[in-house]
Formats: sequence, structure tokens, C-alpha cells
Amino acid sequence: MTYCVGLKIDRGLVFMSDTRTNAGMDSISSFRKMHVWERPGERVIVLMAAGNLATTQNVVSLLNGRDKVMEEHKPAVLETPSMYQTARLVGDTLKKVIHMSAPGGERADSFFNASFILGGQIRGSVPRLFMIYPEGNFIESTEDTPFFQIGETKYGKPIIVRTYDRAMSFSEAVKLLMVSFDSTLKSNLSVGLPLDLLFYERDSFKVRLEKRIEYEDPYYRAISDSWSDALRNAFKSLPDFPEE
Amino acid sequence: MTYCVGLKIDRGLVFMSDTRTNAGMDSISSFRKMHVWERPGERVIVLMAAGNLATTQNVVSLLNGRDKVMEEHKPAVLETPSMYQTARLVGDTLKKVIHMSAPGGERADSFFNASFILGGQIRGSVPRLFMIYPEGNFIESTEDTPFFQIGETKYGKPIIVRTYDRAMSFSEAVKLLMVSFDSTLKSNLSVGLPLDLLFYERDSFKVRLEKRIEYEDPYYRAISDSWSDALRNAFKSLPDFPEE
Repeated sequence: MTYCVGLKIDRGLVFMSDTRTNAGMDSISSFRKMHVWERPGERVIVLMAAGNLATTQNVVSLLNGRDKVMEEHKPAVLETPSMYQTARLVGDTLKKVIHMSAPGGERADSFFNASFILGGQIRGSVPRLFMIYPEGNFIESTEDTPFFQIGETKYGKPIIVRTYDRAMSFSEAVKLLMVSFDSTLKSNLSVGLPLDLLFYERDSFKVRLEKRIEYEDPYYRAISDSWSDALRNAFKSLPDFPEE
Repeated sequence: MTYCVGLKIDRGLVFMSDTRTNAGMDSISSFRKMHVWERPGERVIVLMAAGNLATTQNVVSLLNGRDKVMEEHKPAVLETPSMYQTARLVGDTLKKVIHMSAPGGERADSFFNASFILGGQIRGSVPRLFMIYPEGNFIESTEDTPFFQIGETKYGKPIIVRTYDRAMSFSEAVKLLMVSFDSTLKSNLSVGLPLDLLFYERDSFKVRLEKRIEYEDPYYRAISDSWSDALRNAFKSLPDFPEE
């Protein structure tokens, strides 16, 4: 499995992804699921992947122009005129890859399935955040739904729904994602450390922070240790059931 | 979908279930998923069901002896010598019902699938709690795993894992289940009010409280309204991410 979240706040975009891939319980490994393209001053594009690793790696290779001869290698995602066109490019590439793998092609055969969260900003437009489905179509975040999750989304969703605030700072947004990931890591073995974190500040056109969070990361440990206590205290503060 | 939880604490057993059944998004109705058999002074048996409603109703009918002529109606679950035998009876009945419906019988064809949480106490033994699978086999709760969930289990699991304590009172246990159900109700439309609540006190051999909780129930409203605030305060109490 996988867990990735892309979050849109007033100040920009925040992304977090885990790194575990597995083929059965007895075959796990670490693969980066967050891919970043940056042309400082002009664009930052972040893509996070969930699903079949052969499919998602192949999509990223094609987006990087790896199907061309060496001297023509050049990431197509650095040439798109808008985030909308970038989302279409990713969706079309995904459809093509699934079509190559599965005889059923556009039916997005579940075995070769993948989905993506795409976010970023290209000069001339605002930051935008998309979710791209295995069928190649996509939706964009709105004020009503300012975040997208892919993979194992359920354990970590309630905390995001209840504490997200578009005016929050990067530090608060990272805290929110840490709590959401901690709940998921504690519940599903197929989501695993280390985590990749990135945040992008609106209109900066460069990555503000990109960081890999390992098990011994002091901030992650502080959150993981103190969230259980904070939750227990919150629980204690509620009224007990009045027995008739 | 469905959401049911059975929780074993030192003082006894606590059960909660929702009542929503649906066949698609546009066909929802309310059905009781909690079934209780009581012979005061001798036994209390509680069964909660998730899965295909035709299957689960059929199992309960057979457990009540409804396949016999009227004068022979008598619940077989009132005659079992132990909770273990009761779990076997439920498991065997479930296998039989699935076998009647699906040509594939014992393969527990997913379309006719159902699972159960069974708990209670019969004089001469301690309170026991079981989870019964569609294949008819079952597991019993232990100190390591003192609760079972069936149906939409993910949203409401983290709070149980983090705040359960075997020494908790009935009032605290009900509060815990209310929070767990509230998180689930807020996230999955196919889990719905009203809820059924029951608690059984160890060695009492009678139901201590059985109650239906409707939307306007004051305690449910208090929990639902204050949990978001409590959670936000807990979140605020954690350290923000220290940006390098």
C-alpha cells in the first residue's frame, strides 16, 4: 500500500508521502513516491504516486523523456504551459502505460492500476492541486476539498477533516500531516517510514523545503510520542456517559 | 456498510452497532444489527452482524428455531452449554446459510458474505467475546486484542487503540465507542444512526443497559459537538514543525 497527502493552504502547497512498497507481506522495499521538477523562478511541479510500482515508475520515466535517445532526454513536465496541461500530460501518460501493460487498456485493469496527486505552480497562474485517476481523468482541489489523499486514506482522514484550516502555517500543516501519517503507520503495516516531506510557498517558484524523515527524526518522534497522550487527554475532557 | 464494535473490559462487555443497510447509494434502510438472547440468572448472549442482510437475517432466524413448526420454536442459542459451543453454532449456521444461497457454498462467496461479533456469558464460565468469519471459523478476544470490529472499521480504530484501558468503567467505554462511531459516521455515508448500545456486567447474567441512540440523543450530540474541539485543542498542544 501507500499513503500520500497533498494539502493546499493559503501560503502554498504541502506534500507528504511514505516510501513502502510491497508484493505480499514478505517482500517489502523502499521506493521514493514523491517526484519533483523545478525550474527556479518559473515552475515547481510535484507528483506523488500510489499503485502498481511498474506502472508509476514507467509514467515518471516517460514524463522525464527516458523513452527518447539520451541526448533528447528532457522532462516534458518542464515544457507544459499550465498545471492543467501538466495534469492532462500525466493522465494521458498513465493511460498509455496501463494500455501497454494490460490487454484491457483503458479499462484501467485493477492489477496495473495507479493514481497520482499532482501539485505545483507555473508562472502566470496560481498554485494548483490535482488528483489523477487510473482512467487518466482528474479532479482539481477546491475550497470545499482542499486536500487529496491516495493509498491507505481512511485511518489518517478524520484528523485532517477536523483540524485543517486554510490559514494555517507551514509548521502547523506539517504537524497535521505528521499526525495523520502517524495514525496510518500505527494501523497499516504496508505504509512505512521514511517519509518524504516537501513544501512550496506560493509565488516563490522554488522548493522551500524538501526533507526525508527517518524513524529517529526528533520531530517525528516528539509527535508520535505526544499524540497518544494528547488524544487521551482530549478523550478524558469529554463527559462520561450518564448511566440512567 | 455497517459498523459494529464489541469491547471486553474487566467489568464486562460493551456492544455498539449502527442500523444502516444499503443496496447502492439510493436504497438505504434501517435494520437492527444487534440481537440479544437472555435467560436471567443463567445467560446473556449478544450477536452483531455485518454483511449481506439476507444472510444475516437468515442466520438469526435459524438460531431462533424459525425453521421449525411454530410450537417447536425455541432459540438454539439458549441451549448451548458454553460460549464456545455458541460460537460454533453460529459459525455452522452461517456456513449452512451461505451454502444454501451460493452454489460455491463453503467458499463463502463474497456476495453472500457475512461476519459476526458474538459475546456473552453462560453460568459456569467467564464473559467471552468472539469474531466469526464468513467461512464459519472464529477467533476469541485476548488481553492483547480485547475488542473486535466488523464492517467499516478503519476510521474508528485509532481512537480505540489509543485510549482503551481494560480497567475503564462502562461510562468511559460508552464514551470511547461514541467517539469511534462519530468519526466513522462523519466519514462513511453507509454507516448511519440510530445506534444500538448494550452493556453487560460480568457475572450478572442479565442485560444491564440496552438503549437506542437517535440523532437527537443529548449525550451523542454532546460528544459529537465537543470531540472536534477537544481534538483541535489536543492538536494545538503539540509542538509545531521547527522549520530549519
